[in-house]
Amino acid sequence: MNKRIGKRTLLLPSAPAILGHAAVAGQKEGEGPLRDCFDFVSEDSAFGEKTWEKAESRMLRDCFALVCDKAALPPSSLDAVFSGDLLNQCVSSSFAMKDSGLPYLGLYGACSTMAEGLGLAALLIDGGYASTAAAVTGSHFCSAERQYRFPLEYGGQRPPTAQWTVTGAGALVLGRGEGPRVTHVTFGSIVDAGIKDANAMGAAMAPAAFDTLRAHFEDTGRGPADYDAIFTGDLGALGHDLLQELFRREGIGLGVRYMDCGVLIYDLKTQEVNAGGSGCGCSASVLGGHILRAMAKGVWKRVLFAATGALMSPLSAQQGNSIPGICHAVVIENGGRAHGNSD
Amino acid sequence: MNKRIGKRTLLLPSAPAILGHAAVAGQKEGEGPLRDCFDFVSEDSAFGEKTWEKAESRMLRDCFALVCDKAALPPSSLDAVFSGDLLNQCVSSSFAMKDSGLPYLGLYGACSTMAEGLGLAALLIDGGYASTAAAVTGSHFCSAERQYRFPLEYGGQRPPTAQWTVTGAGALVLGRGEGPRVTHVTFGSIVDAGIKDANAMGAAMAPAAFDTLRAHFEDTGRGPADYDAIFTGDLGALGHDLLQELFRREGIGLGVRYMDCGVLIYDLKTQEVNAGGSGCGCSASVLGGHILRAMAKGVWKRVLFAATGALMSPLSAQQGNSIPGICHAVVIENGGRAHGNSD
Repeated sequence: MNKRIGKRTLLLPSAPAILGHAAVAGQKEGEGPLRDCFDFVSEDSAFGEKTWEKAESRMLRDCFALVCDKAALPPSSLDAVFSGDLLNQCVSSSFAMKDSGLPYLGLYGACSTMAEGLGLAALLIDGGYASTAAAVTGSHFCSAERQYRFPLEYGGQRPPTAQWTVTGAGALVLGRGEGPRVTHVTFGSIVDAGIKDANAMGAAMAPAAFDTLRAHFEDTGRGPADYDAIFTGDLGALGHDLLQELFRREGIGLGVRYMDCGVLIYDLKTQEVNAGGSGCGCSASVLGGHILRAMAKGVWKRVLFAATGALMSPLSAQQGNSIPGICHAVVIENGGRAHGNSD
Repeated sequence: MNKRIGKRTLLLPSAPAILGHAAVAGQKEGEGPLRDCFDFVSEDSAFGEKTWEKAESRMLRDCFALVCDKAALPPSSLDAVFSGDLLNQCVSSSFAMKDSGLPYLGLYGACSTMAEGLGLAALLIDGGYASTAAAVTGSHFCSAERQYRFPLEYGGQRPPTAQWTVTGAGALVLGRGEGPRVTHVTFGSIVDAGIKDANAMGAAMAPAAFDTLRAHFEDTGRGPADYDAIFTGDLGALGHDLLQELFRREGIGLGVRYMDCGVLIYDLKTQEVNAGGSGCGCSASVLGGHILRAMAKGVWKRVLFAATGALMSPLSAQQGNSIPGICHAVVIENGGRAHGNSD
């Protein structure tokens, strides 16, 4: 059976199920519109730890423990875990998972990490190499600020196009069984639109989202209307509008079914986050909380989840480089049926 | 057909072939014992670029172009590329691949990246999700020094246990066709032996190599003698001896077939690299150069390639954390036959 359709989209004949999902968030996110969708909201932004980096790692560890609990699987029983984050050398992920004893596949996909991990975990299961696999990622506002921009104490000014790194984490456990199913994965190529303004990440990432979604539509012969909801990861208000405009130029309307996790997670009018949320934890916590909860309630049947990432570093920006973007897309279908039998 | 054997090892029924391999190195590596195994040795450590980071990225891009050329495949024809490196946010990989137009899967496996990428690329092909896929990684002494330790100009002292980050890159293209085959993959778990000395990476990573190799032997029912050669990635002289000692305590002798890429790449007596080479480029360039060239000549038939990584950052060390290690192992067999038909 052919598992590639079109140029880039992968078909998962057995359509692995999402057996469990969890989302953990910080206080600010817990005060936003999605407040009721998190499994745990910490009133303490340090999550009981002494440094922001250890707080981020703790959040990932807690979220992973939660998802295993919700999936009713002992953490030690999983066959693999895919994880990554924004910190230098992805230390929040590796320290979160270091005592799990599980085969660990470290990723760096910037804010697209949840889609990359979810896609690879689903392929590992669909291919018959794992019975269960997890995807875990997150971000923390305070660790991201001091690493990418300035220490919080500096009180740096933020232009209206800037985004706010989400303090939050999301975790999914996949396997064979009941739950929404992963039916297709479209891994993205890097797209460099030449944007150099690190305060306009939405503009840097929107062309990548356009590239991946367009490829996905071409490969599958589907259009936006074939999905009940389409989510990008963290384009924010600016990138959300840009992506709509890019499709409009092709004569394609994304419609109201198109939403961005970075726009949904905060109240942009009152929470002073400028253009919206960003960070690995943005799309991960919105998927692990809001989206999959709504799917469980039957709000949406077929969802296209397209997490976006900016593949830059403070040093690459200082050296005059532009900000390349990437977007990986995954189709999640409620009650989706397997395409066939891969065995 | 069951594609898992034992607890952790994955069997690749179609045994994807390594269609091409390439290795690029810096001047110092080009003066070492493996000098004749690189496809290109740069006399200019800046590789014609203005910064060390851009040099590293350039090296990866050149190595990728070389491997596609050697495999006689247009770069644009590949179905996926797995890449990662040691720089913050893995920018040398993403900037190296950003104009390729290929589906890009970013990894962070520290110095184990080549084995992680090779394993995942092989699974993608074996599972029927890709016809061809590449694994690319590398490191640069000068970018690593200033990021992990001190700017070169500082002239920091190095203890005898310290290792020297290899300036080098390796790239492999996998697919269906002629070439040495990937038959098994054993992804590693993170092992934290509590080592806190960033100048003793071999000691930090040896327990992870022990854990993965022991799991591999248990899963497959094989022992060291079933391999013509076993390579760890960059344990250096210290870690090489430690790993032998760990196996000796279990009554298992690794024998002379066991070698470490970090020991092989330099002349430890004359090149002033202390305990040997390290970095993503160490095992990647030794595999893409020396090992696969020797296999092509029939020197070894069945090789176990076990790249090792230290999942720490300068910040995690400053915050008092230990240095967790990881090791991923891949079996490469010359003339290896497919176990079955996955279609």
